[in-house]
Amino acid sequence: MKRVGKQTIIFSHPPLILSSATVVGPKEGEGPLKQTFDLVLKDNLFGEKSWEKAEMKILQEAVSIALKKTNLQEKDIDFFLAGDLLNQTISANFAARNLGIPFLGLYGACSTMAESLILGSVLIDGGFAQNVIGAVSSHHETAERQYRFPTELGTQRPLTAQWTVTGSGAVILSQGERGLRITKATVGKVVDFGIKDQNDMGSAMAPAAVDTIIRHFKDTNTTPDDFDLIITGDLAFMGKTLAQQLIEKEGYILGNKYSDCGLLIFDPSQDTHAGGSGCGCSAVVTSGYLLHSMKAGKYKKVMMVGTGALLSPITVLQGESIPGIAHAVVIENFS
Amino acid sequence: MKRVGKQTIIFSHPPLILSSATVVGPKEGEGPLKQTFDLVLKDNLFGEKSWEKAEMKILQEAVSIALKKTNLQEKDIDFFLAGDLLNQTISANFAARNLGIPFLGLYGACSTMAESLILGSVLIDGGFAQNVIGAVSSHHETAERQYRFPTELGTQRPLTAQWTVTGSGAVILSQGERGLRITKATVGKVVDFGIKDQNDMGSAMAPAAVDTIIRHFKDTNTTPDDFDLIITGDLAFMGKTLAQQLIEKEGYILGNKYSDCGLLIFDPSQDTHAGGSGCGCSAVVTSGYLLHSMKAGKYKKVMMVGTGALLSPITVLQGESIPGIAHAVVIENFS
Repeated sequence: MKRVGKQTIIFSHPPLILSSATVVGPKEGEGPLKQTFDLVLKDNLFGEKSWEKAEMKILQEAVSIALKKTNLQEKDIDFFLAGDLLNQTISANFAARNLGIPFLGLYGACSTMAESLILGSVLIDGGFAQNVIGAVSSHHETAERQYRFPTELGTQRPLTAQWTVTGSGAVILSQGERGLRITKATVGKVVDFGIKDQNDMGSAMAPAAVDTIIRHFKDTNTTPDDFDLIITGDLAFMGKTLAQQLIEKEGYILGNKYSDCGLLIFDPSQDTHAGGSGCGCSAVVTSGYLLHSMKAGKYKKVMMVGTGALLSPITVLQGESIPGIAHAVVIENFS
Repeated sequence: MKRVGKQTIIFSHPPLILSSATVVGPKEGEGPLKQTFDLVLKDNLFGEKSWEKAEMKILQEAVSIALKKTNLQEKDIDFFLAGDLLNQTISANFAARNLGIPFLGLYGACSTMAESLILGSVLIDGGFAQNVIGAVSSHHETAERQYRFPTELGTQRPLTAQWTVTGSGAVILSQGERGLRITKATVGKVVDFGIKDQNDMGSAMAPAAVDTIIRHFKDTNTTPDDFDLIITGDLAFMGKTLAQQLIEKEGYILGNKYSDCGLLIFDPSQDTHAGGSGCGCSAVVTSGYLLHSMKAGKYKKVMMVGTGALLSPITVLQGESIPGIAHAVVIENFS
């Protein structure tokens, strides 16, 4: 059995990250990670007539760029695993239609990038595939008008709110020895501490991140010392602060080894309040900054923890709290 | 490589269907398959205050009944793979919260049951899990008001329209030799023939079903003669008629070996027009009627083809056509 504990998978022949690509909106392109993105859009419409059509195109473009960095074509990819935040995951569905690769649709809210890397690695390590693409997207305007208010209203956002990232990250997984490889993965449980504030999703997701990170340590008999970096997806300022406190309360000292994609992607001067969020947040920071830094030798072993808030506007209106989920993948440099 | 052709997986040690369970609404319980369901609800609210909360409970209950038929408890299940039709797949998310099993959320519209069986089988055959639950749900009223009109309006439906099934099917996959086992699976591509009529989803999905079925024949060098039954998920009257024509045009004679869950679940006297649809349609017919019939020896080898329409109300409003997808699983009796 390629598993330790109840939740952690150990890949017997860790899948190789063959290439990755990122497409982001203009605001993300003005942030601290601007040098790490493959394509920065001039506006959030990307030549399309609607933000939704733009998001589909952004996802498709990230996949195309990731493919161009390899010798592979669409026909060489066995499976396309993708998802996004829109109702019925239409960005992924329509990108899949245009790409023509056998498609497995996923939904893990903002944890979907990690979920696609886990299931992609399972397909490769299990001997079912040679090459797999995992990709997700989010778009500030499509998310804003679907989850919250018409964007034209310009509704005031509290300081705990996060800014949905416009962008897509795509990762091609393959077989191979030398390079960055996914060695382990921990599949999360849904955790709900009863938080109901839609404007503080970071805090709502933090308990799930903590649960998965500690589960990973216990399942694999490791501690923060075994990692050069532990990075969550989009807890941002509120959630990261809470997660760090909760983890350290359990006796694991993270110190400055812990970071969050939602904190890295924007500068405080960009007025995004608590930081970035959305499927695209962990996707573009992982596919860009994180993998680039690992290739450059900055980090040798990293735990990336995708975090998702599993709510919908309907569950909020019906008085439900916000359940969270977090999936972890361990990426190691074998070069 | 456990794969033939580009799209078909051959399981090296086919996962065992350890148990399955179904919960359906009152209308489904009055249909021709009423004897095959584990629980027929008295009304569509199931003691809850909203249809959405009822759907979450239906999904959770199907999983509970499937577990009760085994010696397993929730803690013995490695992964829960689930999805549904609601925005942000809230039925699956909230069922997962209450079940506490490591969760991988899926979205393949009405093909999600087949997708969960494929990925569940991959996890078991690949050595990543011992026991997996795949489950999906749909609910007539939640789907109606989300995709179409407020139910109170009583909007007239054309004869090509289908009736979303209220129900959930859950399947527990495990390791084992004797019983019904999943031997092969074909992961579908998104296929779009440009159909835009939301009231004829069967026809919109038919080309995807045809693509996957013919791909399966070609990948595995089989013909309809190799199967006792080929059953699609929810093409219903319009879609099934079209699919059969398209497949026979390619030289494969299906004859009366071909059936559709959407045609089996309701009697024409129930006034559902073209037949049943929804994630729950293929799920309850597969988990109930189909597996029961196979156990009773009626069919030895069956290809179940989940079919999904990958639209959203937004894509329809923005003038997009309806892309379809279909995933096939082959179930064989090893008893």
